[in-house]
Amino acid sequence: MRVYLDNAATTAMDERVIEAMLPFMREHYGNPSSVHSHGREVRTAIERSRKKVAELLNATPAEIFFTSGGTEADNTALVCALQTHGIKHAITSPVEHHAVLATLQNCAKKNLAELSLLNVSGKGELDLDQLKELLEKQPNSLVSIMHANNEIGNLNDIERIGALAKEYGAFFHSDTVQTMGHYIHDVKKMDIDSLVGSAHKFHGPKGSGFAFVRKDKKISPFIYGGGQERNMRGGTENVCGIVGIAKALELAYEDMSGHQKHIETLKSRMIDQLKEAIPGVEFNGLSADMDKSLYTVLNVSLPPSEENSGMLLFNLDLNGISASGGSACSSGATVGSHVLRALNATPGRDSVRFSFSRYNTVEEIDYTVGKLKEMYSQVISA
Amino acid sequence: MRVYLDNAATTAMDERVIEAMLPFMREHYGNPSSVHSHGREVRTAIERSRKKVAELLNATPAEIFFTSGGTEADNTALVCALQTHGIKHAITSPVEHHAVLATLQNCAKKNLAELSLLNVSGKGELDLDQLKELLEKQPNSLVSIMHANNEIGNLNDIERIGALAKEYGAFFHSDTVQTMGHYIHDVKKMDIDSLVGSAHKFHGPKGSGFAFVRKDKKISPFIYGGGQERNMRGGTENVCGIVGIAKALELAYEDMSGHQKHIETLKSRMIDQLKEAIPGVEFNGLSADMDKSLYTVLNVSLPPSEENSGMLLFNLDLNGISASGGSACSSGATVGSHVLRALNATPGRDSVRFSFSRYNTVEEIDYTVGKLKEMYSQVISA
Ligand SMILES: Cc1ncc(COP(=O)(O)O)c(C=O)c1O
Ligand SMILES: Cc1ncc(COP(=O)(O)O)c(C=O)c1O
Repeated sequence: MRVYLDNAATTAMDERVIEAMLPFMREHYGNPSSVHSHGREVRTAIERSRKKVAELLNATPAEIFFTSGGTEADNTALVCALQTHGIKHAITSPVEHHAVLATLQNCAKKNLAELSLLNVSGKGELDLDQLKELLEKQPNSLVSIMHANNEIGNLNDIERIGALAKEYGAFFHSDTVQTMGHYIHDVKKMDIDSLVGSAHKFHGPKGSGFAFVRKDKKISPFIYGGGQERNMRGGTENVCGIVGIAKALELAYEDMSGHQKHIETLKSRMIDQLKEAIPGVEFNGLSADMDKSLYTVLNVSLPPSEENSGMLLFNLDLNGISASGGSACSSGATVGSHVLRALNATPGRDSVRFSFSRYNTVEEIDYTVGKLKEMYSQVISA
Repeated sequence: MRVYLDNAATTAMDERVIEAMLPFMREHYGNPSSVHSHGREVRTAIERSRKKVAELLNATPAEIFFTSGGTEADNTALVCALQTHGIKHAITSPVEHHAVLATLQNCAKKNLAELSLLNVSGKGELDLDQLKELLEKQPNSLVSIMHANNEIGNLNDIERIGALAKEYGAFFHSDTVQTMGHYIHDVKKMDIDSLVGSAHKFHGPKGSGFAFVRKDKKISPFIYGGGQERNMRGGTENVCGIVGIAKALELAYEDMSGHQKHIETLKSRMIDQLKEAIPGVEFNGLSADMDKSLYTVLNVSLPPSEENSGMLLFNLDLNGISASGGSACSSGATVGSHVLRALNATPGRDSVRFSFSRYNTVEEIDYTVGKLKEMYSQVISA
């Protein structure tokens, strides 16, 4: 049995998304900027995709900019917010994804903006009183707080953060890569200036993302080139990727609550079974709190075990189970998780992130828990 | 009949490229950064693609960085060369693609570097004596000169430019988007620090490119994020795009001289027929000089004609012919071509760029010339 429980890293593409993309690999190959019929038919597809994404977010098409993924979308929103709005101070947290953290650290290094990091509790909760204090001191700040953490699954209170940012007139960007396609985002109801999506996190293609930037917050290009994306993003458009992200988001919205229910069942089942099967099992961050965490993520902290120490992911893989140690992009790195480090995770324990999609089954959960139980049999019998 | 003669804007994908990509849309969907087997098989495909591209350019895999296209590759090479090497002066020309020109203009605006533009003759030739003088004054410069111009097809003498840059210790970047896949690039033989490619210009997918950066020229990331591309380019890799660009480049190299011969036949035929069919026809830049221009591009300047004035592209399109007025990315824009403007093109004449690929046929050329002859019948009989 091969079980894929690394859906926060990336998801399998929906066959209907592939089918929507294929005509733009074969028949409709024109450059969308070309005025002739080969170009116009492709332009139409891009603008229809933009309209679709905008509709789903309750935004206007002019607020949606397609990018090469979540990372570029984050870079664009952050760098451009700083540059266009003359902001000299950015606030974020040490548990953000590197697409935000490394970008802002680089901006700080280049003296584009000073950087403040919020304090984080052992459960990954952000200190929002501190945020308020920082904003009091420097109202003209950029606040960048992710909607949900990709490793520990914590859902941040972006309503409160947005309200604070609004109160002080700060620019609020939220990295919504992990919630896009899994939760409803209604930008008309949100106090948010920019947010982002990445297709491959909701069964779309890799290398395709978008940024929403609120109309009244003018931003400047990040990648310079031709006049694509209304002069906001140079480069011949990744037409297949754009058609794919719109289709994937549309499908995600089609039965979002159905998928949520299914995945919540899997996650609860895994929590219950793990607690029963492995004494001393713990859960990192708030990931075991069904209301305060992504329904797609469960980050498990396992009791010290000689056999599995440092080998947990490897042993799972040997048993046919794909899961992750940290974020997608660093799961292969030896440096470990900067998120778990910020939480002062107990030394000696191994952590693993299981992340679910609508394609996972009850059988896969049971199989995985069964294998973990075998792997930790020494601990259990001890 | 529908004739596509806009191959410098973008090309139709080769079915073999699509076939190479499909398994990475379907079965192999893992995140290449994941350590488990779903991830490792994808990592292998990326590194194999990198090796393939490197081999074809006679580079090493560590010198190849995948990007979301030619524009991002140009932005990366230029911005990072300036930042990493402390270069305060950039030299380019007014007929560069916007991916270079707008990027460097923005760097100048942000006071990252001063910008000098080379003089250009009415035929699009660059003043290389001026380049030498500029380098004499400021040896520690960035020189960015494209290999071939995408509108008028001029092949620049990058050997001489490279030798000059080397003599003065300048950083030499060349936008090789229009020659990649159409000419051999052997980076071991070239005095060049960075060059770029874009898959959709040689029958690969849109939204996939790469930069070659010479080993001894350390550069820093442009897009910050996870540790992908050896920490040089954050963001989950566009796996399909990467597999696609490598396959497309491999196919391009497989029978390059055969394709070149075929396309040269088409281009010569069109030149000869146009001269015969339309008195007063001229050719912009050096595009009619078979030795000094891209074999894929012919930029035609037509005599003043009331019926076609400002309507040339439209009338061609009505007749089923897709061609372009300027560069791909501005061909839809009303601002006209910055390249032809820099050449002081004769007012009153309409210009059209025909650009060819290995898929074009003699019949298509004859059909197109026939239609142009009809369109310009008034001029011809006058
Ligand atoms: C000379 C040149 N440079 C750069 C580019 C940009 O490449 P891309 O469209 O892949 O971003 C193009 C084509 O659009 C080009 O012709
Ligand atoms: C929270 C978060 N932000 C940003 C990203 C980056 O998105 P992408 O991989 O599309 O560049 C990811 C995933 O990798 C993520 O989980």
